[in-house]
Amino acid sequence: MSAKPRISKGTRDFLPADVQKREYMFGVMRAVFSKYGYQAIETPSFELTSTLMGKYGEEGDRLIFRILNSGEKVKKADVDALNNNELPKFANSISEKALRYDLTVPFARFVVQHQNELAFPFKRYQIQPVWRSDRPQHGRYQEFTQCDVDVVGSDSLLYEVECIQIFDEVLSSLKLPSFAIKINNRKILSGIAERSGAGDYLVTIVTAIDKLDKIGKQGVLDELKNKNVPDSAIHALDPLLSFSGSNEEKMSLMTEFLKGSDIGMTGLNELQDVFDHVHSLGLQRGRLEFDITLARGLNYYTGAIFEVAADDVKMGSICGGGRYDDLTAQFGLKDVSGIGISFGADRIYDVLNELNLFPNSTQSSISYLLLNYGGEDMKSSLDLAQKIRAKGVDCEVYPNKAKIQKQFKYADARNARFVIMIGEDERNSNSITLKNMESGGQEKVSRTDFLESL
Amino acid sequence: MSAKPRISKGTRDFLPADVQKREYMFGVMRAVFSKYGYQAIETPSFELTSTLMGKYGEEGDRLIFRILNSGEKVKKADVDALNNNELPKFANSISEKALRYDLTVPFARFVVQHQNELAFPFKRYQIQPVWRSDRPQHGRYQEFTQCDVDVVGSDSLLYEVECIQIFDEVLSSLKLPSFAIKINNRKILSGIAERSGAGDYLVTIVTAIDKLDKIGKQGVLDELKNKNVPDSAIHALDPLLSFSGSNEEKMSLMTEFLKGSDIGMTGLNELQDVFDHVHSLGLQRGRLEFDITLARGLNYYTGAIFEVAADDVKMGSICGGGRYDDLTAQFGLKDVSGIGISFGADRIYDVLNELNLFPNSTQSSISYLLLNYGGEDMKSSLDLAQKIRAKGVDCEVYPNKAKIQKQFKYADARNARFVIMIGEDERNSNSITLKNMESGGQEKVSRTDFLESL
Repeated sequence: MSAKPRISKGTRDFLPADVQKREYMFGVMRAVFSKYGYQAIETPSFELTSTLMGKYGEEGDRLIFRILNSGEKVKKADVDALNNNELPKFANSISEKALRYDLTVPFARFVVQHQNELAFPFKRYQIQPVWRSDRPQHGRYQEFTQCDVDVVGSDSLLYEVECIQIFDEVLSSLKLPSFAIKINNRKILSGIAERSGAGDYLVTIVTAIDKLDKIGKQGVLDELKNKNVPDSAIHALDPLLSFSGSNEEKMSLMTEFLKGSDIGMTGLNELQDVFDHVHSLGLQRGRLEFDITLARGLNYYTGAIFEVAADDVKMGSICGGGRYDDLTAQFGLKDVSGIGISFGADRIYDVLNELNLFPNSTQSSISYLLLNYGGEDMKSSLDLAQKIRAKGVDCEVYPNKAKIQKQFKYADARNARFVIMIGEDERNSNSITLKNMESGGQEKVSRTDFLESL
Repeated sequence: MSAKPRISKGTRDFLPADVQKREYMFGVMRAVFSKYGYQAIETPSFELTSTLMGKYGEEGDRLIFRILNSGEKVKKADVDALNNNELPKFANSISEKALRYDLTVPFARFVVQHQNELAFPFKRYQIQPVWRSDRPQHGRYQEFTQCDVDVVGSDSLLYEVECIQIFDEVLSSLKLPSFAIKINNRKILSGIAERSGAGDYLVTIVTAIDKLDKIGKQGVLDELKNKNVPDSAIHALDPLLSFSGSNEEKMSLMTEFLKGSDIGMTGLNELQDVFDHVHSLGLQRGRLEFDITLARGLNYYTGAIFEVAADDVKMGSICGGGRYDDLTAQFGLKDVSGIGISFGADRIYDVLNELNLFPNSTQSSISYLLLNYGGEDMKSSLDLAQKIRAKGVDCEVYPNKAKIQKQFKYADARNARFVIMIGEDERNSNSITLKNMESGGQEKVSRTDFLESL
């Protein structure tokens, strides 16, 4: 009955040291989110399939993990659909639930369902795992954690400013030395399409520009051509794709380019407002950068869009987000503007690891290990352990009277900071021998003094 | 494209107030577990089906949620099995993964897989959701959180003592007024079966006694009869099922009853050892009770078994656990004794709610709401908000210049403790008007004094 243990591909175990580091990272996020008035919510791991399907495009739908109906219900399997190669229809016949693909759609469902219990603008954060049936590869997992911050029920630009402040404060608190907070506005992209004479090709243009990092400028131009965007429009777009300069220079360029496009100028004015506020409030370690070519793939964005990239590491964006105007409409609640940002926990974790930014306190260790000499000595150790814990300090007693060498080996493996020895001598004099495991030094101290020092 | 939003049955959304209370509860647990030297680990939400199946008995297997294979893989559906009504075989043909049913089996898999990275005895805790395809009903969910504490790699009875201390300290720290920590030992049950002349019926006897709370003494006796346990054995068991008395009286009774059963006397001696240690260390609010009829359904227990019940509420056991000698053997690692306990988060939450034991600090609220008067006043508020947050205090600025009445309504809904007003007057005098939302009183204070008071 024994089987070699295996984990499902694309998933991970987190050992104590991993969990400590992750909890440190999530703890920093939670503290910042709370300071800005965001409150935690949680939604179930699975939703009705109908809630999720059709929200992420064809590619996204394919990556949703579906849960098989239980027991007798699988008898309803639509074998005809299977034989006709209608696989989604077949899947629907034996599956009603699916694991959440992101936190955004469940959040939209949550807002609509609980609208009468919430105060608007409703500010929430949510740190929970999501699941995608992606082919596992380096740095990409089938189960990973998203950390989302959203506010719905207001179109105030102050929330754009707040999102930038939160990016800055979270990453600065995590001691990331420097990073770019890239911002653009979907209205500017609309204006660009309009002024290039390709207003009907907005989605095509956004989709192509979104790949600039991956396929380069020529790749984007080729894709536009292949998708039948008029040559004149491509010609107009060309200089924007490689323009480099300061935020002010880009602002001037775009003010010229977008002249005559109402939506484009609206976007530009919104951007200017956000820049003004951020400038007057200041940032800690982040740089706010106007990125004309920032597009973000998701279709629901309607205003500001963001991406954050860390300097000094080779890694894609570690955060993203933007404003959406009608995310809850798909569940029947219209005209609720919102804005949300997401922290890529796994990538940020990798950056912190690579730059060696986790504090020492996240090392998995124990403060005191009490050796076990058996009998009355052991009782004395148990008694002291209880008093140490009563002071709020962590400790453990070795479970039996093993060889002292073995007990010290365990102390090393557990990364114990101090070892406490209570033998007959110490017991009779109500003292302990305290060994500092880092320095190697040891001393005999009275039990009272020791407890008072904690 | 709008659908009325629904949540999948048997699952729950947690609103901000729920999350705060739950996090308070988990925070207390984590703090206690850490003080005793336990470290957090996490395992993936899904495991290979082969890891989980066959570990929970037939009933358990049926309740495991299986994940449908993605994409083309469902083409391998075994339609013959479906037609022959071999549903598990059909399910196997289209599903390789399953959501975890508990934390124990994944933990056993984890220990075996990572055995060379761990220091033994390995003490871990794990607070994660589990999923069961149970029919949803009051207080029973398809997704719920388990909080498990286990140590593997030692058979020292000190860990039995430690489990009792942890039950006591967690529940006392949560301010539960009084509760019973019930203990028994599987070896005592083996001894009882042996001395009743029904040693071959141990599993039958354990299974029947486990139902005592639900079906009563007569129900247990009937079940034993139906399962062909000899009359003489039932006759011998009868007085044990209703014996009431102090721990000492039960100990005397059993010492007499078990005379001549080696395994029974071993169990009794272990129990006496645990009682002696606990007696000398003392408990906070818990009572340790020897419960001869405590059986615990799961088959893997081999030594001490526990259940905890809160006084003054009608609720089944809120915690449970016990010693197991060979849980990792099913994954190929033999002779690793362990002991583990589990806190039923949902039930404990309900008890705390019913007894009104959540502290006020778990109320979902915000410290300061800054009103928005627009223009320069708003900028002044944004600036102050940043300074408040720099002190580590939470606050938010109302997002736009709405009617003051509306802004105050939001302050109420958000449960703001203070409202800060900065109009032209305050701006010019570098002061604020601070309104205490509880008392209703308000005063004008200098900004410097205010910030220093934080």
